[in-house]
Amino acid sequence: MLVNRHTRTIEWGDCDPAGIVFYPRYFAYFDDCTGRLFALAGYPKYEMTQQFDSVGIPMVDTRSKFYIPSRYGEEIVIESQVTEFRRSSFDVQHRVYKGDQLAIEGFETRVWVGRDDSKPGGIAAQPIPQEVISAFKKG
Amino acid sequence: MLVNRHTRTIEWGDCDPAGIVFYPRYFAYFDDCTGRLFALAGYPKYEMTQQFDSVGIPMVDTRSKFYIPSRYGEEIVIESQVTEFRRSSFDVQHRVYKGDQLAIEGFETRVWVGRDDSKPGGIAAQPIPQEVISAFKKG
Amino acid sequence: MLVNRHTRTIEWGDCDPAGIVFYPRYFAYFDDCTGRLFALAGYPKYEMTQQFDSVGIPMVDTRSKFYIPSRYGEEIVIESQVTEFRRSSFDVQHRVYKGDQLAIEGFETRVWVGRDDSKPGGIAAQPIPQEVISAFKKG
Amino acid sequence: MLVNRHTRTIEWGDCDPAGIVFYPRYFAYFDDCTGRLFALAGYPKYEMTQQFDSVGIPMVDTRSKFYIPSRYGEEIVIESQVTEFRRSSFDVQHRVYKGDQLAIEGFETRVWVGRDDSKPGGIAAQPIPQEVISAFKKG
Repeated sequence: MLVNRHTRTIEWGDCDPAGIVFYPRYFAYFDDCTGRLFALAGYPKYEMTQQFDSVGIPMVDTRSKFYIPSRYGEEIVIESQVTEFRRSSFDVQHRVYKGDQLAIEGFETRVWVGRDDSKPGGIAAQPIPQEVISAFKKG
Repeated sequence: MLVNRHTRTIEWGDCDPAGIVFYPRYFAYFDDCTGRLFALAGYPKYEMTQQFDSVGIPMVDTRSKFYIPSRYGEEIVIESQVTEFRRSSFDVQHRVYKGDQLAIEGFETRVWVGRDDSKPGGIAAQPIPQEVISAFKKG
Repeated sequence: MLVNRHTRTIEWGDCDPAGIVFYPRYFAYFDDCTGRLFALAGYPKYEMTQQFDSVGIPMVDTRSKFYIPSRYGEEIVIESQVTEFRRSSFDVQHRVYKGDQLAIEGFETRVWVGRDDSKPGGIAAQPIPQEVISAFKKG
Repeated sequence: MLVNRHTRTIEWGDCDPAGIVFYPRYFAYFDDCTGRLFALAGYPKYEMTQQFDSVGIPMVDTRSKFYIPSRYGEEIVIESQVTEFRRSSFDVQHRVYKGDQLAIEGFETRVWVGRDDSKPGGIAAQPIPQEVISAFKKG
């Protein structure tokens, strides 16, 4: 499966009074990295929703385990990949490395959501297009 | 002119490694307070844009002066008011108090933006509706 | 066990281009609510670390499940409680309600961390003081 | 004077329900860019405070003018430079470009703050070390 590697330098404003990254910011990093992973697969978020007339890939369940904290000015590498595609949902895994040490693991379950024309403004989970799934398997 | 007073407790995640509020967060506080001021005047943001078929009141110029820092758990009071309405723009002033001390002053210039039907998807500055201006003068 | 109930109005800046709360912000809400829960138990964060010469209660594992999205201006109620105290770690649960509907569930595992004098600047997990645990059981 | 150029891709979580960058985030970008400018001059923030036993360079006055909005996935270039050094304060200017268009201008006045040993825990504005000023003039 396709893997996206993104290097990021910790910003002052991402850190809290303990001097380490305020952990909700990692979830923002991860959301950004899922977007980058889809772009790498050839499906930037906006273009993808337009191409398939979908609504997006909202988060339904996410978890992170924190092993090593990071501080202002430090550099981390985030490796992101889809670990499973199901009919209308999929899992993403993020691994944050500081040098060769695993600092954080992140897990996401997202749903492919499209329009539900049976009710005004309705939305509903829909099957993930096969060509999207195929694009990740080329990696 | 109408004045909105909003009390806010500083959150851990709003503070930086120096232990004080990361100043960009104050601009988020002020944006929220401008929304609260308009709601107090009878014009909550979403309803206002629908009622007048406008696009919003985007920021064009903002400034803040910082006199006294605040820390996690401290309580501040933010006083917000429109200081001037012009044809299609207006100024908002925010004053942050810690007890009776003036801690920060914030200034905003925003524009009333509507649709410009002369081009597809166009937007343009428009006159602020008189009834909106009147609602602030009742305060 | 003690329960903290906190009402919060969704801010414009907490929402993303889909018009709903950008989910990392919920983790910031939850971190704030854990702080409020400890304050309710009589242990505000700063005072607690000073009283026990501890370093803090960093997050080691957190998860959230999202059932119903929230939008700008909506009001949510966050109910927070410790669900288990172990020797040096504990679990917190957050439930977000919109009216009487459960919108989100959040789970945290945090560790009680103190100084480790065996090495310079060292820190280590330590037993949670019994009086802290007792304060939560009064609720 | 030394100029730092930093390219940044707009993140989903930096944007608001209007689909454009929530403007307080630009101040976070600018704070990061001032840090990068000092690092470029040979004075990364942490090392600088240690070398000179200073407290930091807190913001006392900042302003931004917004000409062109930016959206998710767009790339901006931020050019940052010190425009004036005074005895114990200095001004920084940030210019955000989208292609060759000037999208935003940011202005900062910061103060060089050190310890004031005349009172416990005291801090005070201090003269900016000449070698720091010289490092910016080499650019």
